[in-house]
Amino acid sequence: MGSKSDWPVMQHAAEMLERLGVAYEARVVSAHRTPKRLYDYATSAQARGLKVIIAGAGGAAHLPGMAASMTILPVLGVPVAATALQGQDALLSIVQMPGGIPVGTLAIGKPGAINAGLLAASILALSDPELSARVAALRAEQTAGVPESPLE
Amino acid sequence: MGSKSDWPVMQHAAEMLERLGVAYEARVVSAHRTPKRLYDYATSAQARGLKVIIAGAGGAAHLPGMAASMTILPVLGVPVAATALQGQDALLSIVQMPGGIPVGTLAIGKPGAINAGLLAASILALSDPELSARVAALRAEQTAGVPESPLE
Amino acid sequence: MGSKSDWPVMQHAAEMLERLGVAYEARVVSAHRTPKRLYDYATSAQARGLKVIIAGAGGAAHLPGMAASMTILPVLGVPVAATALQGQDALLSIVQMPGGIPVGTLAIGKPGAINAGLLAASILALSDPELSARVAALRAEQTAGVPESPLE
Amino acid sequence: MGSKSDWPVMQHAAEMLERLGVAYEARVVSAHRTPKRLYDYATSAQARGLKVIIAGAGGAAHLPGMAASMTILPVLGVPVAATALQGQDALLSIVQMPGGIPVGTLAIGKPGAINAGLLAASILALSDPELSARVAALRAEQTAGVPESPLE
Amino acid sequence: MGSKSDWPVMQHAAEMLERLGVAYEARVVSAHRTPKRLYDYATSAQARGLKVIIAGAGGAAHLPGMAASMTILPVLGVPVAATALQGQDALLSIVQMPGGIPVGTLAIGKPGAINAGLLAASILALSDPELSARVAALRAEQTAGVPESPLE
Amino acid sequence: MGSKSDWPVMQHAAEMLERLGVAYEARVVSAHRTPKRLYDYATSAQARGLKVIIAGAGGAAHLPGMAASMTILPVLGVPVAATALQGQDALLSIVQMPGGIPVGTLAIGKPGAINAGLLAASILALSDPELSARVAALRAEQTAGVPESPLE
Amino acid sequence: MGSKSDWPVMQHAAEMLERLGVAYEARVVSAHRTPKRLYDYATSAQARGLKVIIAGAGGAAHLPGMAASMTILPVLGVPVAATALQGQDALLSIVQMPGGIPVGTLAIGKPGAINAGLLAASILALSDPELSARVAALRAEQTAGVPESPLE
Amino acid sequence: MGSKSDWPVMQHAAEMLERLGVAYEARVVSAHRTPKRLYDYATSAQARGLKVIIAGAGGAAHLPGMAASMTILPVLGVPVAATALQGQDALLSIVQMPGGIPVGTLAIGKPGAINAGLLAASILALSDPELSARVAALRAEQTAGVPESPLE
Repeated sequence: MGSKSDWPVMQHAAEMLERLGVAYEARVVSAHRTPKRLYDYATSAQARGLKVIIAGAGGAAHLPGMAASMTILPVLGVPVAATALQGQDALLSIVQMPGGIPVGTLAIGKPGAINAGLLAASILALSDPELSARVAALRAEQTAGVPESPLE
Repeated sequence: MGSKSDWPVMQHAAEMLERLGVAYEARVVSAHRTPKRLYDYATSAQARGLKVIIAGAGGAAHLPGMAASMTILPVLGVPVAATALQGQDALLSIVQMPGGIPVGTLAIGKPGAINAGLLAASILALSDPELSARVAALRAEQTAGVPESPLE
Repeated sequence: MGSKSDWPVMQHAAEMLERLGVAYEARVVSAHRTPKRLYDYATSAQARGLKVIIAGAGGAAHLPGMAASMTILPVLGVPVAATALQGQDALLSIVQMPGGIPVGTLAIGKPGAINAGLLAASILALSDPELSARVAALRAEQTAGVPESPLE
Repeated sequence: MGSKSDWPVMQHAAEMLERLGVAYEARVVSAHRTPKRLYDYATSAQARGLKVIIAGAGGAAHLPGMAASMTILPVLGVPVAATALQGQDALLSIVQMPGGIPVGTLAIGKPGAINAGLLAASILALSDPELSARVAALRAEQTAGVPESPLE
Repeated sequence: MGSKSDWPVMQHAAEMLERLGVAYEARVVSAHRTPKRLYDYATSAQARGLKVIIAGAGGAAHLPGMAASMTILPVLGVPVAATALQGQDALLSIVQMPGGIPVGTLAIGKPGAINAGLLAASILALSDPELSARVAALRAEQTAGVPESPLE
Repeated sequence: MGSKSDWPVMQHAAEMLERLGVAYEARVVSAHRTPKRLYDYATSAQARGLKVIIAGAGGAAHLPGMAASMTILPVLGVPVAATALQGQDALLSIVQMPGGIPVGTLAIGKPGAINAGLLAASILALSDPELSARVAALRAEQTAGVPESPLE
Repeated sequence: MGSKSDWPVMQHAAEMLERLGVAYEARVVSAHRTPKRLYDYATSAQARGLKVIIAGAGGAAHLPGMAASMTILPVLGVPVAATALQGQDALLSIVQMPGGIPVGTLAIGKPGAINAGLLAASILALSDPELSARVAALRAEQTAGVPESPLE
Repeated sequence: MGSKSDWPVMQHAAEMLERLGVAYEARVVSAHRTPKRLYDYATSAQARGLKVIIAGAGGAAHLPGMAASMTILPVLGVPVAATALQGQDALLSIVQMPGGIPVGTLAIGKPGAINAGLLAASILALSDPELSARVAALRAEQTAGVPESPLE
């Protein structure tokens, strides 16, 4: 994520990955304050064995797109509502990438972080039948948890 | 895609997949006009052997999210600028999914379609070293194609 | 409604229907977490004798439009402000339907829920003179309740 | 509609009503230039035997809401993109009604006009089985008209 | 104003008028809940000797424009932030009037209410030299009240 | 107006004033390129006998507000759609004035220019019965010019 | 800055300048309430030996652009979120300047104020090697202060 | 600039620099397609003797902010309207930088490019009296070029 202050949002991605038994590392990499760290992180990610990068950032959110520019791994971006514009700036900064450098963008804030974890798991599940089963189970549980009536 | 009229945009996803040698099928599935077709398509996608679903739609763009609600395959969404609001409606309709049902959203229009194809290939490349090499080559070619000067 | 958490808003629709003596059922049907329930609900609604469907949802609010895609009953949509975008996402997701599948959309939040109940009653009143009289009475009462001066 | 210049959009509502065999009248009633005509039209609509009012307007679009304020008939509003803001002003002016005076709002422009005609028909179909059958047939035809492939 | 709930904002217009010694009346006239009252109020305003009408409203704010449609008196509009959209809906509903029916629109909320009172006074001051002097004095006082340093 | 390029829009204000027999002067005063001219113009306006100032500008439209800061005459502002943001920037730059310095803001573009001329005439008509009659006649003519049917 | 109430935001610019040892003066100059003070301030700034002007303002934020219109010194603008629109109005009012009168605009609110101070220092550092070293040190310190992990 | 396609906009910055006799280099550096080139360019800029960096980009415009993250030279950003969102995405992606990494942002498109050139010259003029005189002359010429009347 781009800042330690993004953790209250981004931890929901981590929790989802934990719940699904997907190994991950949580790192603070600021596109703007630590560009060298970003450069090193993104260019080495594939060689280090990472499979998917989830990047969350707010405001002029350049982290997901810049990470994507330096790796061919799938990059998922989570806009964080960190400014007066409530995440609209982050959403557009992340999603409006030019042709050639994709970032799979999720919703602003907590639902986006949850879904980044879940989409990463769905991607990894393509070649991991056990993970696929765990994702399917979680989805089924989620469906079962919806009450019939608002008063239940 | 949600409508035949989305094809001029969505064909860029198809072209990217072709260029990278990724097999695909292009289908018109309207969330609103053919909900049964959507239901059948999405619920059977995994069993039919599909790996990634790319869904493009405009306006109140429900196709990507509804597809995602009925499969655990990764779903990528492309907002199409089909109304007076120039794709802002489609972008928000696709990206603002609730926690639990992820759609990896790309940019509005042609760059988003290109990137949906490329991101799908990147996802598949995680377990296909040859495809991974082709993606890397395309990315390198892309980098090499940027001129040093605007006057070149 | 799309989620139990929409109830604080959507109960205003229920209260209006109760006040006007219109029978109704309140159900949680999540387009994204329970698509099968939505499919069953919408396709059977007319046969079950329902006359009007009021659907409230937030974020990428697909419930009203998807319900409308599977029934010819009038569907009324209420955008709920459930995300950082304060209902702008839900409004556009509900109102910008393509030609052929209408959703009569009301205001964001509580006023929209009140009005969904009232509009549903106005629709039913077309063939129910007693209900029509009750609607007229409520409207007259409402008019009478506006003070002449802000200091009254 | 609020202006003769709205006709290119609003005629799509008329065409839908004609196609479904629903009798209608098309009138120009400007909330701002002919407020007396609006007052007379709206207050007499129910007595004249009208069942549903479809009102289309652009910019500061007050016609639908003001019509709704003077009748208990269901009022459907169609935002027309008539200004530099491309219908965003009309959409908000129509949909954001206060609790107590509902306007069922459709999409901006042509799709909204089509849907206003269709929703009006769906409302009338609640007490007209033959119309209901015609609406169902149109919807089925619409579904059947969606090609399987974008290249068909 | 359109609702008693607008008074906390609109009282700033009243206070400005009082401070400048301009006689005024404060009335609640809801465009939507009391259209007849609005009709009577606006059509009789000039004959009753009113000179300027200040109208404040929120959401789908039709009061200023509808008042303007029924009088040739200058009408000033104040958008009130009464909904989830924080006055953006009211601003567009008030300012985007079609050619032929003007509303002089002020800022959203308190500053707009203050300025509506002040602009009304400036208009009346064109034919009232004493009022003109009082407006000039207030403006001078206002200028004098700006400190040189933020720490004063 | 702020630029000669605003004339195609602002001439509609001039035409309205001519049609109503109101004397006026049309001047180019750029807040940004000729601040001294603006300063001289605004501070001398009242002494020169001007009654109302109509100021049109686009983009970061500072002309109306700055004129208002230097005179107690009523200032009317017309946002011109001169940039990629289609007048949204000009609208907010003109209307969102702080308490104490009012600008009566009209619609973006041509309708706003027409209405600025008409509102200025309405203001002057308060102390000019003949002008008042001409304004009333124009408004009546306008009402009469609305056809009953879109097909007339 | 345009108002004493902008100080809680703008003091962050002052603090940055202090931290970097850059002499500055903090003045309240309201474009709208004290236009003469603004005129005097901006036209004399260069002669008084000022090098860079930082101007912060909210709403219809005219201060930065008007200062820029009267000096050739670099002017930096900070949008302050002072209204219901949360700084969107101020941002557009500051950044959308016409060709010929530049304002270097920073982010809305506190980050923008910090950056205005830092950018001013970077500008002055071009001809002040010691300041350049202090800016470089601050930037390095900033980089070093980013933790590796969100849990540190 | 971020793409050769930005040149029609960005050449206006070059023309302004030429007109003012400021040496410059025009380079295509894509943040996303050539991140290594960006890294090399930005980290070496100061040592190579550059004084100011002007960076223009569209969509998810990361070039200005990323350049700023790797140099302490002043960086000026120009949002280019390259997508369906007409530069709103680029504006927010450039201006909403976090505290610590400033980008002085100009208007969307051509006026912004002109102003970037002019602001860069104003910055350099602080230590170059001859350039300062040329900037002052250009500004005076610009002022003199504003006609008194729109009909001149």
